[in-house]
Amino acid sequence: MPELRKDPIMGRWVIVSTERNSRPSDYKFPADLGSDDTANCPFCPGNEHLTPPEILAYHPPGRKPNTRDWWVRVIPNKYPALRIESEPNRKGEGMYDRMGGFGAHEVIIESPAHNVQWGDMSEKSLRDVIWAFRDRTIELKKDTRIRYVLIFKNHGRAAGATLSHPHSQLIGLPMVPIRVQQEMIGAKNYYAYKERCVFCDIVSEELASGKRLIGSNEHFVSLAPYASRFPFETWIIPAQHSCHFETINEKEADSLASILKLSLKKISSHLGNPPFNMTIHSTPIGELGTPHYHWHIEIMPKLTHVAGFESGSGFYINPMPPETAAELLNRH
Amino acid sequence: MPELRKDPIMGRWVIVSTERNSRPSDYKFPADLGSDDTANCPFCPGNEHLTPPEILAYHPPGRKPNTRDWWVRVIPNKYPALRIESEPNRKGEGMYDRMGGFGAHEVIIESPAHNVQWGDMSEKSLRDVIWAFRDRTIELKKDTRIRYVLIFKNHGRAAGATLSHPHSQLIGLPMVPIRVQQEMIGAKNYYAYKERCVFCDIVSEELASGKRLIGSNEHFVSLAPYASRFPFETWIIPAQHSCHFETINEKEADSLASILKLSLKKISSHLGNPPFNMTIHSTPIGELGTPHYHWHIEIMPKLTHVAGFESGSGFYINPMPPETAAELLNRH
Repeated sequence: MPELRKDPIMGRWVIVSTERNSRPSDYKFPADLGSDDTANCPFCPGNEHLTPPEILAYHPPGRKPNTRDWWVRVIPNKYPALRIESEPNRKGEGMYDRMGGFGAHEVIIESPAHNVQWGDMSEKSLRDVIWAFRDRTIELKKDTRIRYVLIFKNHGRAAGATLSHPHSQLIGLPMVPIRVQQEMIGAKNYYAYKERCVFCDIVSEELASGKRLIGSNEHFVSLAPYASRFPFETWIIPAQHSCHFETINEKEADSLASILKLSLKKISSHLGNPPFNMTIHSTPIGELGTPHYHWHIEIMPKLTHVAGFESGSGFYINPMPPETAAELLNRH
Repeated sequence: MPELRKDPIMGRWVIVSTERNSRPSDYKFPADLGSDDTANCPFCPGNEHLTPPEILAYHPPGRKPNTRDWWVRVIPNKYPALRIESEPNRKGEGMYDRMGGFGAHEVIIESPAHNVQWGDMSEKSLRDVIWAFRDRTIELKKDTRIRYVLIFKNHGRAAGATLSHPHSQLIGLPMVPIRVQQEMIGAKNYYAYKERCVFCDIVSEELASGKRLIGSNEHFVSLAPYASRFPFETWIIPAQHSCHFETINEKEADSLASILKLSLKKISSHLGNPPFNMTIHSTPIGELGTPHYHWHIEIMPKLTHVAGFESGSGFYINPMPPETAAELLNRH
């Protein structure tokens, strides 16, 4: 069973497996993704029996659960990092703090098509994916033990994906991830001084200068952030102040699908379908809307190896100015 | 010229190249390390003319600078992330903050031998490497514009190394890296409540339980941290409270060389010379010794791909319990 452990210096929680049968050879780089083997792909239509029973599916009326004919399908992760049957009992262990491995770990199968990428999916399909993120977040909010729903996508092996069929993941956590905590503290400090939301300020600054803009529409702005850590790092921010991702309405979900598709299409056509990671940062569950924190999406193409001094120090070297990144992405 | 840019939300500084001639193809994964080509290796003895002139070398008496016959050689990085000739002028840019790309970026060539690893080097050679870290830090402290000396090593391609000849790097920065800042805040909070240093507490806890211990001697403890983020993550902590790395004396440097060799030997013999990253965390220059912060070394073997949700959220999943890691490393 996994457990949650707190680093006593940083206050950072880590999911630690406590199964003792692991061997050093289990920690080599994973093999290449099986690419075109749709017969054995657990996420392909017709193979629904290879996954745990679905939690949610968007499908035509009259379909039986766990059969083919769906657009988006959400299932529990077969190898969950955390388990909903556990309890988040907090306990001391010597000087340290731990919690049971409680949480939800779900997989969002984004499309019946085995080889489609976000940049090629229809806006309607991407909208369904966004809507599944929303539906699952609203559902998981009902469990008062869950404090945060972390939505993320690993695309490509170098970004951590082990299956190539398009999918995202969601982890419902009994605490707030430290990066979101730290962003909220930073945003609060900015608000304390300026009495404005730092994300709202970024949106106006970037729309005005245009230098780092990748796209914009009625509800969203896509941009290369001023202090980008990685080449072609891309953020998508709601144009109007909005705290919680899951309050998104249908019209906004359409706009988000459209700007996601545009951004990913630019990235993949200029960089050749690179591996990338996507995460949604949002105000934690149970916290009311705040004037200082604004949900957003971070997309990080994996083009360079992050050298260890970067994860060891929090200090990044980015060889690509975001202005150049935006200019290159905007070329036809 | 590079510049330093501050993320307005997190307050994190990033080195951003501002050269506009980069192309997307420059950001693919680097080619494999040339392994045995000592004739063209700029770090091999006899090739001193291939590097910028040395800043420091340990050598027999009577040697001319930049010739062969050295044990450790420190040179400016040929492709520096920051330049000492710049000035750290702080400026606003719209709502953002920037600084000139001021800083020192040096390479410590650890041995004349092209293919030797830390686990195989003699304790005397490793001690010389540690002493070069110390000497350069003390020298760079004299420049009052430098606030932090970040010492790190990338071993192996997956850890970001581009040359295989054993070397470490040092970056003298006009600010404190955010991870060290955050650790200092965390350690201060712990001290405020307990009136004890959290690192001193970790040392006693781990020596007492022994469960996560990799080694110990008179001056240092090597351990798998309780909330390890990565399989086989290893920390080396001074056994007695010590704030600044560069106050290390000769006897302590001998002890550190000995425990570093022991730890790396265990890692490489059980895991087959894996890529790893090493960083030294220390109290910033210009800050007096504090009762709450304790310098230490973090070693992170790169055995798994870190999935992006981890860098995106600060939330880690570690499939290897540190107790098992220590047990495996301690097997004969």
